[in-house]
Amino acid sequence: MRISDLSRLSGTPVGTIKYYLREGLLPPGRPLGATLTLYGDEHVQRLRLIRALTSRGGLSIAATRDIVTAMDQPLEPLDTLKVVHYSLPTPVDAAETDAVDEHLPRVDRLLTALGWDVSAESPHRRALAASLMDLSRLGLEYSTEDLLPYAEPAAAVARLDLDRLEHIDDRLRLAEYAAIVVLLLEPVLAVLRRLAQENESHHRAAFTATTDETAPKPRPQD
Amino acid sequence: MRISDLSRLSGTPVGTIKYYLREGLLPPGRPLGATLTLYGDEHVQRLRLIRALTSRGGLSIAATRDIVTAMDQPLEPLDTLKVVHYSLPTPVDAAETDAVDEHLPRVDRLLTALGWDVSAESPHRRALAASLMDLSRLGLEYSTEDLLPYAEPAAAVARLDLDRLEHIDDRLRLAEYAAIVVLLLEPVLAVLRRLAQENESHHRAAFTATTDETAPKPRPQD
Repeated sequence: MRISDLSRLSGTPVGTIKYYLREGLLPPGRPLGATLTLYGDEHVQRLRLIRALTSRGGLSIAATRDIVTAMDQPLEPLDTLKVVHYSLPTPVDAAETDAVDEHLPRVDRLLTALGWDVSAESPHRRALAASLMDLSRLGLEYSTEDLLPYAEPAAAVARLDLDRLEHIDDRLRLAEYAAIVVLLLEPVLAVLRRLAQENESHHRAAFTATTDETAPKPRPQD
Repeated sequence: MRISDLSRLSGTPVGTIKYYLREGLLPPGRPLGATLTLYGDEHVQRLRLIRALTSRGGLSIAATRDIVTAMDQPLEPLDTLKVVHYSLPTPVDAAETDAVDEHLPRVDRLLTALGWDVSAESPHRRALAASLMDLSRLGLEYSTEDLLPYAEPAAAVARLDLDRLEHIDDRLRLAEYAAIVVLLLEPVLAVLRRLAQENESHHRAAFTATTDETAPKPRPQD
């Protein structure tokens, strides 16, 4: 297809497609003469992945290029997830690096207590240290013991996530799914937690109201 | 204390404090003569809450005012969480409202299946519909059956969150903690999930490698 068809099919302006080609996010098309270049379905798919990463996932062009470039290498399926992970921006202010690093031992203690197999180079170690520092500064300390009970729900979610990624053989499709599952399922999980908080607070309020009067109301199963 | 001391103690510039006073986010101080106004510890605490909501939580001034104004009304402790919840911005584009509403029945089906007690006015219903719409458009359908297993981890986290908020009697402190727990624990949970995904993918890779050779390696307990 011509670039105009690629633009129409993918909903991406021609100028944006040319920008992605220049920046190496999109592989070049097949030249057919001096003025015509042809593109294929793989370009449509790649554009969808780029849009998922940049607009919904909020990734920079550089981080997106890291991911899509890595996708072109031969990769084990599970390594795909790591590439997506390690390309994600971790919001640690450069000026705060030293302060954040003081909280890294707390992360190490947690990972040791959990027995989790996480690479020493994982950027998420420092991201977690930064979040724990934020909470400490606001007067809310989360110790290893406080965090441990949050780990099993996280592990349960991770197993569901990985189940969703198994048995996808097409590498580009796997990369797209990994990015979507990692990045775009996050708001779903955040909203589910808020809905669960409201449900839980209704239960507790009802329980408190009842114990004020007679016998405690049996708590419905979640 | 004078406004200069309030500024120093809270780390907030005097101009910003005056802006918050004008916008009604901060209650007025006690006037002592024509040119001197005195502020108290409650102003320091309130400024810390405002900063937590605006800078770390990413809330607008309007949403922050909704929360801090509601805090000045007599509230049941558990209602505090609702005020925080319902003041949060839900990222649904006005132009997309109709499209999002088509996905609301999916949310209703999920909440019915879960038996969760969530108000019909909860803004999180539409927020979840919007996220499910996003995923559908990217070709990743999450049915009620797909989402159900994510609910129990969310409920487990919500119980931990509510435990943290119980037995806080000071209303302003409770509001601050509710905002912090709802908003600032979110990145902690997101990072825990990513760490758990890496751990889980290492396990599955090790399992696959071993089954290729001899007997399956027993999977360590998470």
